Amino acid sequence: MTIERPSALQPEMPPTRWGDPDRASELPDGVRDLVGLVFPIHDTPARGDVTVPAPRLADDHVAGLRAIVGDEHVVLDDALRRGRTRGKSTPDLLRQRSGDLGDAPDVVVRPAGHDEVAAVLAYAAERRIGVVPFGGGTAVTGGLVADPAGLAGVLSLDLGRMRGLLALDPVSSTATLEPGLRGPEAEALLAAHGLMLGHFPQSFEYASIGGFAATRSSGQSSAGYGRFDAMVVGLRVATPAGEVRLGSAPANASGPDLRELFLGSEGALGVITEVTVRVRPLPEVKEYEGWRWPSFVDGADAMRVLAQSDLLPTVIRLSDENETAINLADPASVGATGDESTAASGGCLMVVGYEGTPAAVAAKRAAVTEALTALGGTALGSGPGEAWAHGRFNAPYLRDSLLDVGVLVETLETATFWSNRENLYARVKAALEESLGAGTMVLCHISHVYPTGCSLYFTVAAPGGEDPLATWLPAKAAACEAIVAAGAAITHHHAVGTDHKPYLPAEIGETGVAVLRAVKRAVDPAGILNPGVLIP
Amino acid sequence: MTIERPSALQPEMPPTRWGDPDRASELPDGVRDLVGLVFPIHDTPARGDVTVPAPRLADDHVAGLRAIVGDEHVVLDDALRRGRTRGKSTPDLLRQRSGDLGDAPDVVVRPAGHDEVAAVLAYAAERRIGVVPFGGGTAVTGGLVADPAGLAGVLSLDLGRMRGLLALDPVSSTATLEPGLRGPEAEALLAAHGLMLGHFPQSFEYASIGGFAATRSSGQSSAGYGRFDAMVVGLRVATPAGEVRLGSAPANASGPDLRELFLGSEGALGVITEVTVRVRPLPEVKEYEGWRWPSFVDGADAMRVLAQSDLLPTVIRLSDENETAINLADPASVGATGDESTAASGGCLMVVGYEGTPAAVAAKRAAVTEALTALGGTALGSGPGEAWAHGRFNAPYLRDSLLDVGVLVETLETATFWSNRENLYARVKAALEESLGAGTMVLCHISHVYPTGCSLYFTVAAPGGEDPLATWLPAKAAACEAIVAAGAAITHHHAVGTDHKPYLPAEIGETGVAVLRAVKRAVDPAGILNPGVLIP
Repeated sequence: MTIERPSALQPEMPPTRWGDPDRASELPDGVRDLVGLVFPIHDTPARGDVTVPAPRLADDHVAGLRAIVGDEHVVLDDALRRGRTRGKSTPDLLRQRSGDLGDAPDVVVRPAGHDEVAAVLAYAAERRIGVVPFGGGTAVTGGLVADPAGLAGVLSLDLGRMRGLLALDPVSSTATLEPGLRGPEAEALLAAHGLMLGHFPQSFEYASIGGFAATRSSGQSSAGYGRFDAMVVGLRVATPAGEVRLGSAPANASGPDLRELFLGSEGALGVITEVTVRVRPLPEVKEYEGWRWPSFVDGADAMRVLAQSDLLPTVIRLSDENETAINLADPASVGATGDESTAASGGCLMVVGYEGTPAAVAAKRAAVTEALTALGGTALGSGPGEAWAHGRFNAPYLRDSLLDVGVLVETLETATFWSNRENLYARVKAALEESLGAGTMVLCHISHVYPTGCSLYFTVAAPGGEDPLATWLPAKAAACEAIVAAGAAITHHHAVGTDHKPYLPAEIGETGVAVLRAVKRAVDPAGILNPGVLIP
Repeated sequence: MTIERPSALQPEMPPTRWGDPDRASELPDGVRDLVGLVFPIHDTPARGDVTVPAPRLADDHVAGLRAIVGDEHVVLDDALRRGRTRGKSTPDLLRQRSGDLGDAPDVVVRPAGHDEVAAVLAYAAERRIGVVPFGGGTAVTGGLVADPAGLAGVLSLDLGRMRGLLALDPVSSTATLEPGLRGPEAEALLAAHGLMLGHFPQSFEYASIGGFAATRSSGQSSAGYGRFDAMVVGLRVATPAGEVRLGSAPANASGPDLRELFLGSEGALGVITEVTVRVRPLPEVKEYEGWRWPSFVDGADAMRVLAQSDLLPTVIRLSDENETAINLADPASVGATGDESTAASGGCLMVVGYEGTPAAVAAKRAAVTEALTALGGTALGSGPGEAWAHGRFNAPYLRDSLLDVGVLVETLETATFWSNRENLYARVKAALEESLGAGTMVLCHISHVYPTGCSLYFTVAAPGGEDPLATWLPAKAAACEAIVAAGAAITHHHAVGTDHKPYLPAEIGETGVAVLRAVKRAVDPAGILNPGVLIP
């Protein structure tokens, strides 16, 4: 087929904030009253008096890169480099707001396709130039912060020109996508064929296909459509040591599954240049509804029963008592809708969604409704579900507004087996509350479920104080240490980056780390790929 | 919990045949008439005039190993070494029948648990003794044939003493099993708790938990319960470089999923000493039934529609026209039942099975029945389904009986995406028929389905001639070349071993091979782990 490209591209995000400036969130009065506006966090202007360090890359290197991708695709412009500096975690935003651009790449390089990526990697390896793959720029764990030590410079490998639907196999229900496609762009290309990928993380509107694969993203419809890594059947990866093409079949016994080595490799083992994913027919029906549970424990038990009965709806999420009551951090009811009724009803809110054909939705809904009712849930109707669906991608806008008024807001997530859920929840919550002190709100929801366990997604809001970064970093460390102490995953879908790297050895062991290092040496002997990220 | 161990152990298999001698298959007269009994294949006696090469291991090495696992667990006995020589492929059996024991291990070592495995590996690495992990001995792709070049000897690391249920987490629905447990032993231990693993490959009765993990086994109920690798949530692996413990959560974003590197590692990257798997409640109801399709294409299309609608029963298998007509290689109707009615009815037989609670079975059966009927299938009732269930583990016995009368019988399997299925089928079939010539029967069934593709499982029967091994090996090579030419997986669930090793580079590329070699060097710098297996 001819390569199909999106007719409309997602816009660039401003460097210090999330998303589209026109959709900036109005802070509800109730929220504003809850917090003390003591130290509002200054936001530097998007351009102007912020200094980007001068590019360190030698002129002949710039010329060499221009010879590969074309003059206009090797960009030294300050604004573009500023926009490729770090990601969108709260620390990233705080550093950008404070004007700290110390991690800016020296140059932005925009290859047109796999072959140009491969050529850039070969060139960079020979000259020891660090390469940071850049998709949507929505990283929240320091995955875009390369360590330039010992390198001739760092280039941001912006995959924004690689936004094609390369192949569609309607019989096998697979599509081959380029990594630079943003979520909505990929869905629009597929929708023209009546198809859908069905991956909707909170970062959906800006994050990219390559990023989903490289970070093992998981979306809000993961109960029905699976994690992103589970959707992937094939990968093409450019490495300095050569190309890797994987995916002879949906599954095989041809030794270790190397797809699972490049999924989650965060740019440190190669640049993912093509992703072949399972696609599905566009759902004819989408129904979202709310359920109330007496407690977080009750609701979690119900989720467990559904998952272990292989009876999961498309969407299922459960807020804890705090998140339900504060009605703050969960996009279900925040900002966009300001829905009050759910909070007033007490207990814990579960959002349940069904998508598919009318017959499949009706059958699943009937079975799930019977099960949830038997387990003690109270149906709240479509109101809370529709409110969630309406605001599902808005939470990052609210974070910007809260930062503006001096409230430190950040999220973190983990996963564990069901029997360890309460222990993990209590430990992380206590660690955050203890570190951040009075006035801290720790909210949590179960965002993804499996037959054997689930993820916990925490939202923290606390007074930022004079130095919000100095307030947050010890709290994040305390939460990570609590996660490690509980034997849980240091991350369920936000990836390792640089922020979680110190905790990876506890999770995969020293021998596991040695394996990663060995793979890194094999595919990237010069150590140019996202240096300092992922691999301790 | 206290470690629970099976009250009854599966017996040893005879070296030249499959399974339990008391269950040897009577060859149906119809089958005997079909083949020309020209060169019956001699079967050497199980003991007696067969020579096992003298052990090459130095006495002080034997003493050193005895110091680790105890005197009685380091065995030089000829009969035991003969029983640890190769696996159960047709070439393996032919070599055993001919008295060729050139690949016999020098010594059999039986560790009691992880720590002893680790100590044996450390000892063997220091002295360059090859280590071949041995579970059930059911390998069919040369995974037990180590290359002794440059080594001080080869030891068969028999995991038969490691047969414990180490932990059970009923809340999370997980069980931690030792690798030496055979399929029925693991199921019996779980059944005592009302639970089930649900992994039933044809080798179920003799194959081991460790082998399932190390080879990415897939069972006959994979449509409902998934491949074995998909059931695994945790692994403990002993390597010469140290221990690896993986499985912080059902899924995570903590970098590459290293579980997927040790799953399918075939003993070449470590010895799997513990496997934590998802378990399920024992099904209250099991219903198996037959469906007839006008053609293999029609039946395959129906399977595809079900898989892409996420509407799969527990079991679904489809025989092609030949397999349905000959009624030979499919355990559905072979030997044990000699069912004639299905073959007489023409077309292609599909076996569909439902397991679970009565309500879940009824709901799924209603939905699947509606779908299959709409797609043009004809329900045949429970007869063919029950016949299949009755004989599902018997095909290897029939192979022995056919070998006895001079019929060469072997199976091979592959997988691909749906759109490539017909091409793959035609190529492999033609390659086998062309290589083996007149009198060859090539039968096929679709044994496992996914939303994006399926596996093809071929059974070949042909006159063995004077030298059946020399007849078969070129045919197997031709089939492998056809699979590679079709861009399919060289194996869907039989693993790589030594037989498929030459074809692995075509599937994962030279860079992929370099990655495997790098991992091997990291965990096994002395190169003692299953040398010559898996990694080219």
